Amino acid sequence: MRKVSVVGGVTSEFRKETDRDITHIALESTIKLLKDTGFPRNLIDAVIVSSCSSDQYLSSVISEMIGIRPKISHRIDNLCNSGTNAIISAYSYISSGLCDCALIIGVEKSNTSGKILSNDFSRGQYNLPIFWGAIFKKIHMKRYGSTEEQICQIPVNNYLKAKNNKNAFNRSKSVNLEQVLNSRVLVEPLKLLECCSICEGSSSILLIADEKFSFFKSKISSNKRNCELIPVVIKGIGQQTNCASFSNAITDIFAQSSARMAAQQAYKMAGISPKDVDIAEIHDAFSILEILGYEDLGFVKKGEGGTFVYQNKISINSRGGIIGCGHPIGVTGIAQTVEIFEQLSGKNIHNLKLNRSPHVGLVHNLAAAGTSGTVLIMEG
Amino acid sequence: MRKVSVVGGVTSEFRKETDRDITHIALESTIKLLKDTGFPRNLIDAVIVSSCSSDQYLSSVISEMIGIRPKISHRIDNLCNSGTNAIISAYSYISSGLCDCALIIGVEKSNTSGKILSNDFSRGQYNLPIFWGAIFKKIHMKRYGSTEEQICQIPVNNYLKAKNNKNAFNRSKSVNLEQVLNSRVLVEPLKLLECCSICEGSSSILLIADEKFSFFKSKISSNKRNCELIPVVIKGIGQQTNCASFSNAITDIFAQSSARMAAQQAYKMAGISPKDVDIAEIHDAFSILEILGYEDLGFVKKGEGGTFVYQNKISINSRGGIIGCGHPIGVTGIAQTVEIFEQLSGKNIHNLKLNRSPHVGLVHNLAAAGTSGTVLIMEG
Repeated sequence: MRKVSVVGGVTSEFRKETDRDITHIALESTIKLLKDTGFPRNLIDAVIVSSCSSDQYLSSVISEMIGIRPKISHRIDNLCNSGTNAIISAYSYISSGLCDCALIIGVEKSNTSGKILSNDFSRGQYNLPIFWGAIFKKIHMKRYGSTEEQICQIPVNNYLKAKNNKNAFNRSKSVNLEQVLNSRVLVEPLKLLECCSICEGSSSILLIADEKFSFFKSKISSNKRNCELIPVVIKGIGQQTNCASFSNAITDIFAQSSARMAAQQAYKMAGISPKDVDIAEIHDAFSILEILGYEDLGFVKKGEGGTFVYQNKISINSRGGIIGCGHPIGVTGIAQTVEIFEQLSGKNIHNLKLNRSPHVGLVHNLAAAGTSGTVLIMEG
Repeated sequence: MRKVSVVGGVTSEFRKETDRDITHIALESTIKLLKDTGFPRNLIDAVIVSSCSSDQYLSSVISEMIGIRPKISHRIDNLCNSGTNAIISAYSYISSGLCDCALIIGVEKSNTSGKILSNDFSRGQYNLPIFWGAIFKKIHMKRYGSTEEQICQIPVNNYLKAKNNKNAFNRSKSVNLEQVLNSRVLVEPLKLLECCSICEGSSSILLIADEKFSFFKSKISSNKRNCELIPVVIKGIGQQTNCASFSNAITDIFAQSSARMAAQQAYKMAGISPKDVDIAEIHDAFSILEILGYEDLGFVKKGEGGTFVYQNKISINSRGGIIGCGHPIGVTGIAQTVEIFEQLSGKNIHNLKLNRSPHVGLVHNLAAAGTSGTVLIMEG
């Protein structure tokens, strides 16, 4: 099995719906990525698009627009997990030897069909994701005694980080605990400022066979790129789908959740434990999900997530999380991975105050009430 | 790199649109496959759905319905090439070691959004695929002197074979050369009986890590399955995307087409040449495409495809091809592969008159005017 590295990643501005075509939104990050890395287009032999849109042949159309003739080319979708799934798919193509260099592009418009869970009859009329977010919060507070103040600290943390991220949807918003606590209740007990916004944007990432790094680097004259090429290895992969409907998810989520199982797979594959993690992207489409993430990733014991919101040992959601950045559904997993890549390659793009230079990074992503979960572990 | 084998495949009836839900259409082939092979559901660690529908979270919904909790689960689409792309993706997951057993399900309703090439502005108002099929036929006749009689022999051949395929869309239709030649011209020079019908249906296939075959077999008590488990190895893979729009395709298709490049990759990987192929599935959504297929696969020289329609050395489109079987877009590549698997495992399901027992089989698939092509080589 060949090792696989990330060598570049760019995320576009996340914003409200514009009248731009989905292919042009994709190009915002893709063209910049190719320019920044100087990567020759004729050496890219896979293009995978992650999107919940219904546009057909999207990977081939985008490939033609940027002048790539890939061997492998298709679209992957799996709701909010699409992006990380696409990265893992690219990993397997490279690891198996079917290709050497994959470009993965997440792209979404705000009106994507991925934002309503119409498939899940068990939700009845409650097919907006917020309904399950609200139930999770209620259960966590009742069962483990986590408080409104603890849970509402998550948006405070993530809005604060988003202020340093020039591409974040909420980059110009200052939010304090009082404001979160007093914001409009959307579905009891979830309040407006605890929920992410669906938005448009794109994120592109380049994966290569690690053994080919020197070869690829030799093909790029240094004046053709805007940044150092620093490979960040993908060391651990975990992926798990437990079910699809909320009626089944609710029995799993506080026991053996998909994300917990994915984390166990990923730690085992990487040969590390939770205490080795320096920096993590945790899926926070709703505040409570980040707290469940702390527990599923083994940063704290089950039920103790509420107390972990004040920690500063692990750098969490440095780009601003989903609450701060916005949530272009098929893009999120890729934007998370780009963030970890950039932090591990020493760029510290948002001028974070870091305790130490991070070496081990983790991406945690979920779909559809946590019925499926993904964890990636990367090492810089 | 681990070897990957097919161990089971089932294709449903192909038919006109019904009011069945897309998940239930998928189950028609999936449930039969699990029953026939007796394969334990808890050993399936990847479920990939191939479909151009816009239903979200389809692989997880179907997994839940059949009681599978896979690690890997998502949908892949790439127009008519979706099915073969999904199989190659599953191959890479297994080959890389990320999973041991993958279930790939192609499913489509007739009203799928994959049937109109709305992405391709270069087609102008001509966004139905038949327009490019007509141009390809015109060029081939003019440039290489292939005749109406030769090209119209393709539907005659494929309708004849479909009569032995109980699941084919056109299973009860007898068609002779005169009828094809005299059928209504849809787009000059393509006639009604030279074109496939979009239809609904599903096809499911099981891939495993070849080294795990004995392990998997030991987990199935022989009275739990309806057929012998005979592994058919995937020996060669070729995949190529040249462009997306017709204006670019037209310059490629008669020179270095995507399918020709895919064939070269696949032959090289399998270590065989065209003369070793015993049985082949060739993409014949329009009559002329099968003739181009003969040439791209190296069965004959460029321009000589017309004369090859009368050969009987290689068994071609034994299930009835796309013209005989119908074309549920994301399903076709999987149904083709299931057909080759069944023929190579000695089942001879349609009571073919075979010259010899086939050992080497090939799947040839295309998307969007041949802008992308896929070739699989399998050995029984």
